Amino acid sequence: MIKPGQLVMLVSPKNKRYFRVLQPDEILNTNDGRLQMQTVMEQGFGGRVYTHLHRPYTVIKPTLYDLIKAVKRQTQIIYPKDIGYIILKLGVAPGSKIIEAGAGSGGLTTALAWFTGTHGRVYSYERREDFAALCRSNLEKIGLESRVELINQDIATGFAQKNVDALFLDVRTPWDYLEHIPSALAPGGPVGFLLPTVNQVSTLLSAMQERPFSSPEVLEIMVRHYKPVPERLRPQDRMVAHTGYLVFARLDAPYPKINHHAAPDGEQESEIC
Amino acid sequence: MIKPGQLVMLVSPKNKRYFRVLQPDEILNTNDGRLQMQTVMEQGFGGRVYTHLHRPYTVIKPTLYDLIKAVKRQTQIIYPKDIGYIILKLGVAPGSKIIEAGAGSGGLTTALAWFTGTHGRVYSYERREDFAALCRSNLEKIGLESRVELINQDIATGFAQKNVDALFLDVRTPWDYLEHIPSALAPGGPVGFLLPTVNQVSTLLSAMQERPFSSPEVLEIMVRHYKPVPERLRPQDRMVAHTGYLVFARLDAPYPKINHHAAPDGEQESEIC
Amino acid sequence: MIKPGQLVMLVSPKNKRYFRVLQPDEILNTNDGRLQMQTVMEQGFGGRVYTHLHRPYTVIKPTLYDLIKAVKRQTQIIYPKDIGYIILKLGVAPGSKIIEAGAGSGGLTTALAWFTGTHGRVYSYERREDFAALCRSNLEKIGLESRVELINQDIATGFAQKNVDALFLDVRTPWDYLEHIPSALAPGGPVGFLLPTVNQVSTLLSAMQERPFSSPEVLEIMVRHYKPVPERLRPQDRMVAHTGYLVFARLDAPYPKINHHAAPDGEQESEIC
Amino acid sequence: MIKPGQLVMLVSPKNKRYFRVLQPDEILNTNDGRLQMQTVMEQGFGGRVYTHLHRPYTVIKPTLYDLIKAVKRQTQIIYPKDIGYIILKLGVAPGSKIIEAGAGSGGLTTALAWFTGTHGRVYSYERREDFAALCRSNLEKIGLESRVELINQDIATGFAQKNVDALFLDVRTPWDYLEHIPSALAPGGPVGFLLPTVNQVSTLLSAMQERPFSSPEVLEIMVRHYKPVPERLRPQDRMVAHTGYLVFARLDAPYPKINHHAAPDGEQESEIC
Repeated sequence: MIKPGQLVMLVSPKNKRYFRVLQPDEILNTNDGRLQMQTVMEQGFGGRVYTHLHRPYTVIKPTLYDLIKAVKRQTQIIYPKDIGYIILKLGVAPGSKIIEAGAGSGGLTTALAWFTGTHGRVYSYERREDFAALCRSNLEKIGLESRVELINQDIATGFAQKNVDALFLDVRTPWDYLEHIPSALAPGGPVGFLLPTVNQVSTLLSAMQERPFSSPEVLEIMVRHYKPVPERLRPQDRMVAHTGYLVFARLDAPYPKINHHAAPDGEQESEIC
Repeated sequence: MIKPGQLVMLVSPKNKRYFRVLQPDEILNTNDGRLQMQTVMEQGFGGRVYTHLHRPYTVIKPTLYDLIKAVKRQTQIIYPKDIGYIILKLGVAPGSKIIEAGAGSGGLTTALAWFTGTHGRVYSYERREDFAALCRSNLEKIGLESRVELINQDIATGFAQKNVDALFLDVRTPWDYLEHIPSALAPGGPVGFLLPTVNQVSTLLSAMQERPFSSPEVLEIMVRHYKPVPERLRPQDRMVAHTGYLVFARLDAPYPKINHHAAPDGEQESEIC
Repeated sequence: MIKPGQLVMLVSPKNKRYFRVLQPDEILNTNDGRLQMQTVMEQGFGGRVYTHLHRPYTVIKPTLYDLIKAVKRQTQIIYPKDIGYIILKLGVAPGSKIIEAGAGSGGLTTALAWFTGTHGRVYSYERREDFAALCRSNLEKIGLESRVELINQDIATGFAQKNVDALFLDVRTPWDYLEHIPSALAPGGPVGFLLPTVNQVSTLLSAMQERPFSSPEVLEIMVRHYKPVPERLRPQDRMVAHTGYLVFARLDAPYPKINHHAAPDGEQESEIC
Repeated sequence: MIKPGQLVMLVSPKNKRYFRVLQPDEILNTNDGRLQMQTVMEQGFGGRVYTHLHRPYTVIKPTLYDLIKAVKRQTQIIYPKDIGYIILKLGVAPGSKIIEAGAGSGGLTTALAWFTGTHGRVYSYERREDFAALCRSNLEKIGLESRVELINQDIATGFAQKNVDALFLDVRTPWDYLEHIPSALAPGGPVGFLLPTVNQVSTLLSAMQERPFSSPEVLEIMVRHYKPVPERLRPQDRMVAHTGYLVFARLDAPYPKINHHAAPDGEQESEIC
């Protein structure tokens, strides 16, 4: 038995995936005919249900990875490989309060809402109205919209929140907004950035030197998939070579800068990754 | 003001880090003298406190990354780069019930406990008594032990739990335990493995073909750090080249296998990583 | 002035490339009309010539990279990234005598012929007649066929040569032919292999332990291209993730094995790559 | 029998390597006692010789990789992984005439001299007298000095050669010398650069846009070594993460620029690497 309000993923015979916050009286219109959500509820996760045209659908409890793959996008979304690492570096946890800008299609927003839970709060800034609408629609489809305050506003005038646990900027010119971070982020709190080009990384690092940030880190994550054939195991022929550079730092506490690293240039950081 | 019971990280002038579940009446003995936790509580996150020898310590709210770095280890721990991805693929969320084996020093255990929160549950199997004790001690230090049921037992006889949301095996011969997974994991649920050698990956993939698992994926994650110098930006000279291969699959529901992938060989999966 | 017999590359306005061993009386039929090779000879490298339809062609002295890119292929060819490293590890030099099998479309053959020069010799075994013909045709087009003895024969019965300087096997089951190497390769000489799967690498390494080979090395080479835009410098979005694993070793001299490595497990080798 | 004048590598029981241009009357002083080169000559490659203290040495014909590993260095040398690719992209062949600057310790110089052979010519510029002396000494030890014209001079005033086949700059500010390339390099000829930082790459690309260069390419090469253990095959734990970025372009012929790429942004180039 699945409880009403739980999120379900319905997988078609052709592997098309439908995401639904379960409402027992809903009837889902699929490419393969109508599906009674009442039956889905009764069958439970791992169960099989049939459309009125007798096509079998599997009921699955989706993972966050499933949700991120399903985000409808008009923008470049942040990849799971990057999201997982961002979550760890930002210290996102059940109950966290997090600011992100810009929300874009809502890939990272989905992850932040997923982990902060019902007691946390995600403040998502998105300047463009169409992206904000898309992000909201993506969140609603999976029932996470109540955890997110979507703010359709430019961050040029700063953030309305105070003392949030972490802050992430996925914007083109993050250096323009550094000055607004200290009043929004808790002292000592982690801040992260995603940037596609080395020129942006360089400009951001320079700008951070003028501001109360310490322990800057720059890195990139690569995932290499293998063909899962036991007797001919080998990497896929091609891979994603680049999504973006991740930059992390910590907001200084309100007194002279300290260095969180023992090593002068972050060399030590490469020891654990 | 920090609430009693909250986790704090105290950073010494030489960047040594102490983790403490805040108890106002505790007095912490550091290399730089004694520190009153009452003062830490009053100063709050981002604050500065002084030992009785007048050495300044910074009070920081630790991130999960900080905690994983601080895990005392007698075993190879799982790296943050891998943990972040595992969390997404397993669908770990506040409230999740997760099985892992073996716990080792507790690096992944820490992450699982962090994300499943107070309403979830982590079942950690560890055969060796010394590792189980180390894992427990690592969890206690950061106040996450109540979320984890640490089971000092071999998994050769199976798992005591039913219907958990996800299962992760970090053991040398995971193929020996595949038969026990269906009775423990919810149908359709995600399962993950970490394996250092290609031979193990190959053996595991073969064994999974005989068992009710579908959508196998094999991948490796590489992190490359840069020297964060804006005017001479370049990667660090050396990097971690290998920690292990990650294998993921989904437990079949109790009827004929379906393929969760559209593409026959997982090629499509490489599109999102 | 280009000398008759020299290799020229003619680049069309649409960047189509023609390779020709210069013969002054030849008339080249291009997509853009006829081109007098006499004029090409007179204009020299870097010059511009016109077809009878007044389309401009540029005369370029091709690099080996240009030639390898132009190899007509019916097989997977070896990539320049791998070829460059193979050449160094095999010690290929002007005057070298080298055996390779199988020749395939002739990508590596081209490189071996290029570097061994007019005083060296390349012995290329290729079992399949169609591939041998293709390889020969590819070599003839660029005037390197006289440096190569193309042997359309299986290597199951061994090699006809003695005391060659180096030997490279790009065949599916190289372990089947290890026994024939000592009689063909100079003692202490380098041997190399290209293998697409980890299973093959593992099988080969095992087989080599039974034979007089030492200092085995296994490696893979990855090339990441960047978008050459100065103000938005970033890697290409996708890259070739895998072509094959390279394995190198040295044939023992005819007395007890010695270890050419100082380090027991080849760790030191990773210091220079 | 080895001919006088041939290069030999003598490998000690402890894997120390001595390089010698064979002179039959020389007596080599090793850590293990004196070695008669007359005996080395008679034993031939793959043979074993004994010092006057009865320690066995193996006689090996060195590969270029062996030579590059043995270069005595006071500077960062170019790695084999990069050298192999450079050689292919520059079109280095027996008989080529090549300019390089700066020579440094002579790692690339060694490779250029190796491949251009007795009929080619390497023009190596090195501003610093101590490096020039070291480079010369490294070349003499392996008998390649006669192929190299070592020019202890700054390239600020340009190159003395005309119409060389290729040109490579391994200097800190290559953009300062671009103006001198057209008078030294054959039109349409390849030019290459090695640069450690992204800032340098960006500056160089900008400068090349003002000069007669086309088809710029930027790339990096990574080599990952494996532990060669057949039953536990896995990558080494750590690897070299970065040596430098390689930039290649072609000098325009003396008329309006043409684009050697079909694709506008070099995307196609990533297809072959």
